[in-house]
Amino acid sequence: MRPFRLEGKPARLSHFYPATVLVVGVSSAGRINFMPVVWHSALSFEPPLFGVWISPKRFTHEMLQSAPSFSVSMHPQEQWRQIHAIGTTSGRRVCKVKELGLSFRRGGELDVPILQGAYAAYELEKQSQIKTGDHDLFVGRLRALWEDESAFAGEALDPKAVSPLLYFGKYLYGRPCAQTMRPSEV
Amino acid sequence: MRPFRLEGKPARLSHFYPATVLVVGVSSAGRINFMPVVWHSALSFEPPLFGVWISPKRFTHEMLQSAPSFSVSMHPQEQWRQIHAIGTTSGRRVCKVKELGLSFRRGGELDVPILQGAYAAYELEKQSQIKTGDHDLFVGRLRALWEDESAFAGEALDPKAVSPLLYFGKYLYGRPCAQTMRPSEV
Repeated sequence: MRPFRLEGKPARLSHFYPATVLVVGVSSAGRINFMPVVWHSALSFEPPLFGVWISPKRFTHEMLQSAPSFSVSMHPQEQWRQIHAIGTTSGRRVCKVKELGLSFRRGGELDVPILQGAYAAYELEKQSQIKTGDHDLFVGRLRALWEDESAFAGEALDPKAVSPLLYFGKYLYGRPCAQTMRPSEV
Repeated sequence: MRPFRLEGKPARLSHFYPATVLVVGVSSAGRINFMPVVWHSALSFEPPLFGVWISPKRFTHEMLQSAPSFSVSMHPQEQWRQIHAIGTTSGRRVCKVKELGLSFRRGGELDVPILQGAYAAYELEKQSQIKTGDHDLFVGRLRALWEDESAFAGEALDPKAVSPLLYFGKYLYGRPCAQTMRPSEV
């Protein structure tokens, strides 16, 4: 392992990958849009907050400015081609739903579209928008959650039951191994 | 998949896992401490910013209040027992370095400890602290990066070369499969 003194922009900022590829769904002014995100995190248990970082260059950013809510959904690796297509098509030029033939359901609590195929999803009420450098953090408060119960075992995702889509950077996708480790004392 | 209307605190907020388990290293007032985090993300390319969420209950939070910088390091799954021990021992009661026999190196640019065994690490200058619900986001500006070049291929991590430690929640750890997917048109 050798150190590099960073001068300006790093060549890449993907050392912390793999990250799960989540899909943000938003509905605004009669339009529906979806975008995959890998810069995301839970932010708080109480209140339950979840956040995604989106560049102001993205059309989804524009839609999120006016929308009061958005969805975040979790998808299996089998859906990688569709999600890659969603990420490499701009909603500014075309309607992704029509162009890519996307199916979705409506949220149960909020007016948010949720991409079909998810094994879990959050319906999030937009709470704030925080600028961090060249991206904005959109903070959402969890108002409803969806889950495929068969994907979870003992309060954690079961990688034998579902294979979440992972991203390594530079359009390289993957998935977790089904084999896991857990300390015996737990 | 069935919806739940969320009432109060969710039973879990781990649907978006697995996440890589990163290790935060901090030095303050002559003390060294390490803590694993799974709530983390890159925040910006330019300037290069990286963030971690830490609960005010944690001793690391107290140390980060006074420290001007911190490290974030990426570790292979083979280190899971040590990292689990770091996460389940409080630096408030004991010195983890002594108690767990931890080895570390010093940052090249900043006064930060970096846990031994990492295949990559960031030296981060603390830039701000943002409260989001019951956690605080510590924003760090990348001042130096370390990488094991053999772990990366074509600007993305190569899971055939290194197996990052993943976390599924409830002390369940894992790793990515070596097998990956990439669209042919890239």
